[in-house]
Amino acid sequence: DSGALQQVARILNGGLSPSDIAHLLESSPPRQRAVLWNLVDKDLEGDVLQYLNDDIRSYFLSKLNAQELAAVIEDFESDDLADLLQQLPDAVIQEVLDTMDAQDRERVEEVLSYPEDTAGGLMNTDTVTVRPDISIDVVQRYLRRHRSLPPMTDSLIVVNRKDEYVGVMSLTRMLVSSPSATVREIMDTDVEPIPVTMPDNRVATLFERYDLISAPVVGDNGKLLGRITIDDVVDVIREDADHSLMSLAGLDEDEDTFAPIFRTSRRRAVWLGVNVVTAFTSATVIGLFEGTIQKVVALAVLMPIVASMGGIAGSQTLTLVIRGMALGQISRDNLRWLLNREFLSTILNSLLFSVIVAGVAVAWFGQPTIGLVIGLALIINLSIASVVGTLLPLFLKKRNIDPALAGGVVLLTVTDVMGFLSFLGLATIFYG
Amino acid sequence: DSGALQQVARILNGGLSPSDIAHLLESSPPRQRAVLWNLVDKDLEGDVLQYLNDDIRSYFLSKLNAQELAAVIEDFESDDLADLLQQLPDAVIQEVLDTMDAQDRERVEEVLSYPEDTAGGLMNTDTVTVRPDISIDVVQRYLRRHRSLPPMTDSLIVVNRKDEYVGVMSLTRMLVSSPSATVREIMDTDVEPIPVTMPDNRVATLFERYDLISAPVVGDNGKLLGRITIDDVVDVIREDADHSLMSLAGLDEDEDTFAPIFRTSRRRAVWLGVNVVTAFTSATVIGLFEGTIQKVVALAVLMPIVASMGGIAGSQTLTLVIRGMALGQISRDNLRWLLNREFLSTILNSLLFSVIVAGVAVAWFGQPTIGLVIGLALIINLSIASVVGTLLPLFLKKRNIDPALAGGVVLLTVTDVMGFLSFLGLATIFYG
Repeated sequence: DSGALQQVARILNGGLSPSDIAHLLESSPPRQRAVLWNLVDKDLEGDVLQYLNDDIRSYFLSKLNAQELAAVIEDFESDDLADLLQQLPDAVIQEVLDTMDAQDRERVEEVLSYPEDTAGGLMNTDTVTVRPDISIDVVQRYLRRHRSLPPMTDSLIVVNRKDEYVGVMSLTRMLVSSPSATVREIMDTDVEPIPVTMPDNRVATLFERYDLISAPVVGDNGKLLGRITIDDVVDVIREDADHSLMSLAGLDEDEDTFAPIFRTSRRRAVWLGVNVVTAFTSATVIGLFEGTIQKVVALAVLMPIVASMGGIAGSQTLTLVIRGMALGQISRDNLRWLLNREFLSTILNSLLFSVIVAGVAVAWFGQPTIGLVIGLALIINLSIASVVGTLLPLFLKKRNIDPALAGGVVLLTVTDVMGFLSFLGLATIFYG
Repeated sequence: DSGALQQVARILNGGLSPSDIAHLLESSPPRQRAVLWNLVDKDLEGDVLQYLNDDIRSYFLSKLNAQELAAVIEDFESDDLADLLQQLPDAVIQEVLDTMDAQDRERVEEVLSYPEDTAGGLMNTDTVTVRPDISIDVVQRYLRRHRSLPPMTDSLIVVNRKDEYVGVMSLTRMLVSSPSATVREIMDTDVEPIPVTMPDNRVATLFERYDLISAPVVGDNGKLLGRITIDDVVDVIREDADHSLMSLAGLDEDEDTFAPIFRTSRRRAVWLGVNVVTAFTSATVIGLFEGTIQKVVALAVLMPIVASMGGIAGSQTLTLVIRGMALGQISRDNLRWLLNREFLSTILNSLLFSVIVAGVAVAWFGQPTIGLVIGLALIINLSIASVVGTLLPLFLKKRNIDPALAGGVVLLTVTDVMGFLSFLGLATIFYG
């Protein structure tokens, strides 16, 4: 009833921050989500959109016309605006740009000209700059002429007359310095500016490694273009980390937890389709040995053990390598060591488990031969799994294939195929 | 040779930041790591330790005696110190505390008294506080008496005479205000202080949601205890995100990528051991149907398909739910909707793929019965997978079992067992 709805609307628009509202929308099934969205105040819509996940945001954006869009995005910072515009069809982008004033349009077109996953796509153009030769006293009077400073301003950027980057002056440093000191005396010129073309995950590494709050971005010519702030970097870190997790299950990191039925099943069908092909590949391998299985049915009972142990061992290696690559730890210099370590530690474990598994198998079926076959097959499959788990992600990355997305499927296909092949192959020899 | 080593030492200690050195150590196999560590200057050791991952840090710490430890940790911030001390045996902690002066000891004992994964364990005690009734002018003169302000100081914390939290005054707000204004006039009292007992992942959510750089921490009595800064929160975000990824493969998020062979194989053996039990569980299920397989060997060829498709579908659901739980999106209110969505979208896909798989199976073996059996088994196994994938992580969490660690193993056991059981069980009925 509408009384209850009005009450919800009051709570939504009165007591909650835009990020809280975004979280509430993300946590709601589609129907409630649509109801809630209609209750959000028009002036809050833009703020809420900034915090929404890409998947949900593009849905709401698709419901707005160019006028409404232009109104909603009025107060967007340029990086958020560029993010948002990149989700829209080109025709709509042009319409939106047409409704903006010249200065804003220029600012947005600038940011739109950089790929989303680079420093350029992350940066804001709202820098506060000062010249090196003025005194702190003058800087303070200049700042007092502002009504406010941009969010996440922890330092002022020092530029020369040609607008080229010179250094940064942190606000805390400024506040403990004498008013008569000049910017030049207290600025920090050791801070390397970020090139506008740097990939966003490298930007994130820099922020994490040097505990930055904001960092200046420059073009090829050394001219200051904008700055990147930690809040946007945290999003990159979160998304990169989510990416590996979700991709290993064939999901997108922007996946809406409460996507409707048909969208969900359509997306998942692709992944199931890939896996049905790999499943039939394994089945084909087993099919080669129908005669052997017919003779010794115990083989059919035990064969999944070899395949699944290989999959487990390989997944551990694969996950460790994918994480190591994401952290920038793995290079040609240490790859050989890593491969040796994975191989040798897996060999140790495969010896241990081949004894255990063979023992159980012999006790179960009373045939020493089956123990020998499963023990050897385990050693072979786990060894292969460790090598493939280490090298596959690096191989895929070289070919510009996402290791997190393709790695798991390829690895499990290999461990299944090699598991059945080694076990049933050895059985055919020994029972032949 | 020692000439080359000296050169490396110069580069290490001259050109690289402590975080760069930590990254280099983390990216090195054990022997090089030990050599590099010996080249690090004594005064840099403490800084480098702060940036190292837990696993590697505790190894280096174990090599130091209490005197060396005390020297190394001299400049540590209290939260980092508490982190580090928590990795040491109690006897060593006491020795280290004994070497410190009374004030430092008190500060550290305070932080040590809070669990590592709460706001108390994350906080620093290096707050800069001001009273509400003084003017900005006075604040600025007070600040100028400092040699420096603590890192990540974006605001001053306003407290009353009893040291109770009143509000925060951001430096940027202060810098745009008139020097004659009082702190009370420009401070922000809307910022809720963080209770010292709040879990660290909720702290991270607050920082992400409100784009914070630092936040005050208070005790039960409202007294200011310290502040939390974004750099430590970024570590929490990174670790939480890594945790789900690594745990699904039975790895620890602090796992050293270049851990030595024996440590690696010992840790992995546990996971392989768990999985060997589940593999034998599946084998036992298959063993129940030896007679049926003997009659129709095609069943042995096709049975892994049903199990693996169930595993894939279930993993997708499981991963989505684990991520949704980590983001705080899933509650009792939307669980029923989520369960319905997962069930229905999986049913749609299982219908699609049962037709495809049944078609291929009939074409392959020329038996209509086998198509019927595998089609029905797929529908049964995928349906079960969707329900288990949705409810299992919530069930585990309620029992305080880590869903990311246990979820994958339990799910795959269920999908394997149910896959073999439904497929071979139906086959026994239809071929019986």
